[in-house]
Amino acid sequence: MPPRFQPPKGMRDFLPEEAQKLRQVLDTCRKVFESYGFAPLETPAVESFDLLAAKKGLGEAAKDEIYYFKDKGDRELGLRFDLTVPLARIILGNPSLPKPFKRYAVGKVYRYDNPQNMRWREFWQADIDTVGSPSPLADAECISAAIDVLTQLGLEDFMIRINDRRVLEAAVEGLGVKKEDAPFVFRIIDKLDKIGEEGVKKELWTKNIDADKVLDYISTSGKNSKVLEKLGKFVKDETLKDLKELLELADKFGIDGRLKLDPSLVRGLDYYTGIVYEVSIGKVAVSCGGGGRYDDLVKNLGGPAIPATGISLGIDRILATLEEEARIKAAKTTKVFIAAISDSVRDEVFKLAQSVRQTGVACATDVAGRNLSKQLDYANVMGIPYVVIIGENELKEKKAKIKNMLKSSEETVKLSDLKEWAKALHSS
Amino acid sequence: MPPRFQPPKGMRDFLPEEAQKLRQVLDTCRKVFESYGFAPLETPAVESFDLLAAKKGLGEAAKDEIYYFKDKGDRELGLRFDLTVPLARIILGNPSLPKPFKRYAVGKVYRYDNPQNMRWREFWQADIDTVGSPSPLADAECISAAIDVLTQLGLEDFMIRINDRRVLEAAVEGLGVKKEDAPFVFRIIDKLDKIGEEGVKKELWTKNIDADKVLDYISTSGKNSKVLEKLGKFVKDETLKDLKELLELADKFGIDGRLKLDPSLVRGLDYYTGIVYEVSIGKVAVSCGGGGRYDDLVKNLGGPAIPATGISLGIDRILATLEEEARIKAAKTTKVFIAAISDSVRDEVFKLAQSVRQTGVACATDVAGRNLSKQLDYANVMGIPYVVIIGENELKEKKAKIKNMLKSSEETVKLSDLKEWAKALHSS
Repeated sequence: MPPRFQPPKGMRDFLPEEAQKLRQVLDTCRKVFESYGFAPLETPAVESFDLLAAKKGLGEAAKDEIYYFKDKGDRELGLRFDLTVPLARIILGNPSLPKPFKRYAVGKVYRYDNPQNMRWREFWQADIDTVGSPSPLADAECISAAIDVLTQLGLEDFMIRINDRRVLEAAVEGLGVKKEDAPFVFRIIDKLDKIGEEGVKKELWTKNIDADKVLDYISTSGKNSKVLEKLGKFVKDETLKDLKELLELADKFGIDGRLKLDPSLVRGLDYYTGIVYEVSIGKVAVSCGGGGRYDDLVKNLGGPAIPATGISLGIDRILATLEEEARIKAAKTTKVFIAAISDSVRDEVFKLAQSVRQTGVACATDVAGRNLSKQLDYANVMGIPYVVIIGENELKEKKAKIKNMLKSSEETVKLSDLKEWAKALHSS
Repeated sequence: MPPRFQPPKGMRDFLPEEAQKLRQVLDTCRKVFESYGFAPLETPAVESFDLLAAKKGLGEAAKDEIYYFKDKGDRELGLRFDLTVPLARIILGNPSLPKPFKRYAVGKVYRYDNPQNMRWREFWQADIDTVGSPSPLADAECISAAIDVLTQLGLEDFMIRINDRRVLEAAVEGLGVKKEDAPFVFRIIDKLDKIGEEGVKKELWTKNIDADKVLDYISTSGKNSKVLEKLGKFVKDETLKDLKELLELADKFGIDGRLKLDPSLVRGLDYYTGIVYEVSIGKVAVSCGGGGRYDDLVKNLGGPAIPATGISLGIDRILATLEEEARIKAAKTTKVFIAAISDSVRDEVFKLAQSVRQTGVACATDVAGRNLSKQLDYANVMGIPYVVIIGENELKEKKAKIKNMLKSSEETVKLSDLKEWAKALHSS
């Protein structure tokens, strides 16, 4: 197939059935986010390269990881790689927004990754963030909303892994790792899922770091209270304060069953400053979302010090999991097809269709001037469950047959009752 | 303000209230489109430059009008400038899609225009297209759906101007314009709104074209039947066939009052092959959408000959008109705030909030650990209409006060009845 017939490398199309499922997932996100009082924000897909590079903390090297280009005024731009960058910019540019500023955003982001399983160059994120609250209450709320999204989508087998970057840092320091080696150690730990315990050990020994001690620390697992107890042996009580408070809140809120304290969780060499969280669903080995506290981001970009926390859901991966687990079906939005036996009745067919639409039921008619049998074929192929057949006789007798295409049954309805019939269908 | 605090030139942010209005408009589009049996399609914002240039019919010169860049594999890409390009690509790449293929798409598109009033470099389009039907029934349906969208949004003063490119071409030829001059004449006519009748005349005379005759033709106005009659004096009856059929259908469908036959309508030097339409709303002088038949597009891009028609709504301009005419208000999605008098009741507040959310009512709580008076201030600033106040006494007595912030009144509700109260609020 010629390249022009395909989407760009690493990107993909959603044909109607897939697009319908995507809409269902995005609608669930929006509904849940709004139910917690988050408000929408819409920002461009394009940002200044300067801002993107500052958030990445990579300078010029950021160009390797994003879609970078200049506009015709020689301005350096790039496609956004997440939804936190535009949020930070909004906070910088609109200091009078009431705090805490709770916003949700649903949109596409772009990364120049190597395309592979579950990794695309354009993908959907659904984010909630709370800016202006230093309290673990805000973290607990974001986590709770994410749990509600996943639950409402029908997922059962998922966990939110949590950790605190400050705890990890203090523990690693306590284990004798030099301050300048800490980022190296985090990077290695972050690869635990990919390279395994032996791989982590091997890499740590290259810098003469006591790999056994580090492994012992990060592989602590079990009940959250037990893990917390063990962490207490590595770091001061004060360092564990937020993590403890978050776990207590989770317990009180009844979401503790979904939280798994994981001392190995790093969440990249990113801008996180405290509690971090990551969504793991079922057998899918990749992360389906995550987030955490980034209290320094706005300040680092040139604004005031303002605490912030949030979570980002990876919609494409969540959708893939829903499909793998057969937990999602594309809703058939079109419920009724009104077929015209002859051209002479097309105006009445249109009017009947409009009356059905007014009830909230989606209704299609033939727009290709086809004969009845081809109209029925079309309704069948499209999976439209009800077909009303209208001809001159039906108009004269003021009643029509409604075929139930799924049950191969039919009923006769007075035309004057069609709207009532549709209303009943809508509320059924 | 430093550039990094602002969106890129020609693009803009939608802060929460604006974003909420945008969502309302987009949701209305989707709902109406689905009610006619259109199915969603989602495609990348990026397309191959080759495809974009082919649709523009401009070759290399297309780079001046779009965001163009190369990926790191030296592939030439660009941001899509409309939603018809990806649709055509989908048709080319998926020949087995059942026809007629009725799809809707809602998304952002990008043009490297000079930013000015009502013209942005990133903007929203909501499109419906029917691929695979040559019948004016398909055009009538697209127009009807567009009318339903505008009506449901509350707009009153709008018209759909219609014309047929073949009629215009035949008429201009009949007026003695040489075939090679026809595109020039169309370009001048297309500028009628901008340069006025005198401007058109002046430009036409430069090529020795009888401007008075052309002006007489294109300025024909009045009742559609009268205009049609006059056009019959310039072109053969056969040429008027589709236009006549569309107007007859519009009459039968009861949408003729919104259609205005306008012999001057050109719709750019674009890929249109037959009927064209354009949405004009109220006092806004710019087009708020348009479309028409493009029966040759798929063939010209290297596919089979397949008829197609569709309409694209310019969401940003429609939103601007709704605001100018004060016809849109951002829905307050958050209806209830549950305030905590002391930290000791935060777990109960969270549980009560969850029970309210289950009824479909959006409910916020404090996540910043603030005292009661600051919580009330926040609810007030955010315009949340109901505030429930919970303290230890309320929990002991199992009832709480609900303040109506809009009416400055209050009521007392048993905590066990709070969910029922929220349900009633939801259905009110």
